[in-house]
Amino acid sequence: MKSETKPVTLDDIAVGNRYLSREFPLNTAQIKNFARDFDPQPFHLDETAAAQSFFGGLAASGWHTAAMTMRLMVESIPFMGGLIGAGVEISWPRPTRPGDVLRAESIIIGIAPSKSRPDRGIVTLQTDTFNQDGEQVQKLVSKLLVFRRGAV
Amino acid sequence: MKSETKPVTLDDIAVGNRYLSREFPLNTAQIKNFARDFDPQPFHLDETAAAQSFFGGLAASGWHTAAMTMRLMVESIPFMGGLIGAGVEISWPRPTRPGDVLRAESIIIGIAPSKSRPDRGIVTLQTDTFNQDGEQVQKLVSKLLVFRRGAV
Repeated sequence: MKSETKPVTLDDIAVGNRYLSREFPLNTAQIKNFARDFDPQPFHLDETAAAQSFFGGLAASGWHTAAMTMRLMVESIPFMGGLIGAGVEISWPRPTRPGDVLRAESIIIGIAPSKSRPDRGIVTLQTDTFNQDGEQVQKLVSKLLVFRRGAV
Repeated sequence: MKSETKPVTLDDIAVGNRYLSREFPLNTAQIKNFARDFDPQPFHLDETAAAQSFFGGLAASGWHTAAMTMRLMVESIPFMGGLIGAGVEISWPRPTRPGDVLRAESIIIGIAPSKSRPDRGIVTLQTDTFNQDGEQVQKLVSKLLVFRRGAV
């Protein structure tokens, strides 16, 4: 993966650090392909069925929104050793739709050095995913394993 | 989607109800394809790089494990109107590997009728995903929107 940013360790980051992603345009075919593989429900697969559903029109699977957000995070967050998640919390305040252009804003909200393993710590990262109208489509809070300098 | 189970509403379910999925076999190509699209990190894409990483070998993206689990949930949980998630919590106690055969066990752990919208409620569902050795690879707790009889 190309990155213009130097990898950072637990020693290089602070609460409040922010990472902004590029934009990710989403089309109908992508929504249906993901749904066919992983979330084959009518409101993710078929415009007519979706129009009559809770969503009132074709919507991406929330898991697709999460996966696209991960792509944007991998590209924009330069933790040395990669993004290794221990756990997450997600909410989807509104659906992602065909034609949406997503972007992700991440901010470090907590850093907890490990007591038992001095070479690492857990970083709590909040990542908000927005569509082209600035409406939030996902809120993600991740617990990420991040290493100290020299550990990776 | 084919289902042999009759759809159920908020009126038909109870805390403790369980839903068992079929088995889902996972191969290397699937792991790399998902990673290429959504989580392009070396430990999900390349055996040699993965062997030297935290994971000690090729591992599926946690988001891939989550997406496969959703597939198994869609097939095994017969809520009328579908599985509509408001939010989730996930943890990944161990990685999913090439050759793993996954299955998901879901149990209803909470039912909260809506106070403002009498036609619906929020069901809290815990879904544990296991590999072929009975080891847990994911713990998921979902808040799902479920409708009353006659509302869908």
